[in-house]
Amino acid sequence: MKRGTLIGVGVGPGAPDLMTLRAVDVLRRADVIAIPRRSERDESLAWRIARDNVGEVAGQERIFLTFPMTKEPERLRPAWERIFEALGPHLLAGKRVAFVTEGDPFVYSTFIYLMDEAPRRWPAVEIEVVPGVSSLTAVPAAARVPIADGLERVALLPATYGVDDLTRVLREFDTVLLMKVGSVMPQVIAALEQEGLLDRAVYVSKATTGEEKVVRDLRSIGGERCDYFSMVVIAKKERSGALKGAGR
Amino acid sequence: MKRGTLIGVGVGPGAPDLMTLRAVDVLRRADVIAIPRRSERDESLAWRIARDNVGEVAGQERIFLTFPMTKEPERLRPAWERIFEALGPHLLAGKRVAFVTEGDPFVYSTFIYLMDEAPRRWPAVEIEVVPGVSSLTAVPAAARVPIADGLERVALLPATYGVDDLTRVLREFDTVLLMKVGSVMPQVIAALEQEGLLDRAVYVSKATTGEEKVVRDLRSIGGERCDYFSMVVIAKKERSGALKGAGR
Repeated sequence: MKRGTLIGVGVGPGAPDLMTLRAVDVLRRADVIAIPRRSERDESLAWRIARDNVGEVAGQERIFLTFPMTKEPERLRPAWERIFEALGPHLLAGKRVAFVTEGDPFVYSTFIYLMDEAPRRWPAVEIEVVPGVSSLTAVPAAARVPIADGLERVALLPATYGVDDLTRVLREFDTVLLMKVGSVMPQVIAALEQEGLLDRAVYVSKATTGEEKVVRDLRSIGGERCDYFSMVVIAKKERSGALKGAGR
Repeated sequence: MKRGTLIGVGVGPGAPDLMTLRAVDVLRRADVIAIPRRSERDESLAWRIARDNVGEVAGQERIFLTFPMTKEPERLRPAWERIFEALGPHLLAGKRVAFVTEGDPFVYSTFIYLMDEAPRRWPAVEIEVVPGVSSLTAVPAAARVPIADGLERVALLPATYGVDDLTRVLREFDTVLLMKVGSVMPQVIAALEQEGLLDRAVYVSKATTGEEKVVRDLRSIGGERCDYFSMVVIAKKERSGALKGAGR
């Protein structure tokens, strides 16, 4: 019996031309493209990125899967059951099912849960992962803030994790990438101000898309409700040219 | 006068098809491709990744730049001067100069230094950055270890930074990506053993290339000298499926 294959395909951070050649190829050759969306009316950002690069493919099936944005078990559980029911027959029939994810499949993506559950539901299924350009590199590129060089250390954390903790991490790491700053921006600004790092922070939302926003004066954001796809990059060190270690 | 443009182009972690559509396009349209290598005899990994995707381009110049692998100022300084002299005339003539980098231009790349120095040398030059698939996502994909989900926190650090420090970071973060483990593998293994995390660590070298190596039993590596392009991924948590937060 042919084994089904579940492929997590990272389609990059937003700009369609930041898809990899492999992502385009894998999506064109898949029997089924599985497209996550947040509601029945949601257009799916991942699919908006990939759609024109993939084009029409004869015989290919495209299924939309609705992942509600909630943590309530009584809504999550039946939603996931519907998703497994939609994917199962294809995987059991030995098909190649490509699941599109914004950015990279292993960075805060729904694919992680799906991949964990797959061997329990469909023991013979094979898993493939196509890494993509993540917001981890797309956001620093948009902000023009290098992530790390030399012996520098980087921390990546969801801002919602806790702001006390943020203060400590800011002291111990050279670069901090704060994800999901949407709802806690005022607390983040206060913590940065306290550490004297507000001028070293850059806010970026919707990096690489037509709606990209880069804000270097975080005070100007104030209490404004920020976008869910937003990030703050904090780089503590002033870099000083190629030869800083060479006596200049 | 036309302003020159210096473009850092990430060509991905090793597999040519993990280049982005944009990287291919930018390299095809550049007036000059600048190709870093570690010695006169070095083939340049970045160029080996990009070469066949870019193909021949009429009128395009390709210049190799030798960055010696040293920290000695007396060797570094003249090498960088030669590099600035090689790039300067093109940038001052208003050309588009694309500098290829493995992975992403902002993750431990020589492009960071070049970009920092550029405005001092050539005040009118414009800088562009094309983010790429970094080893930060390619290595976890090869190891099949998700980087982060939910509220998880990630630390990225060069192993050479100090092993005492590693022990502390291992306690505070959910996932740790250890770069440049080549020369300090025995110390890394000892620190992981002490923290009871050896079984949660995966060693990956040359991810996504034809020579990719994934080792799940780090004890089997022992005192062996490891490749410079190697990384260890440590993920502390056992994930438990899509509905772990939903009462299962």
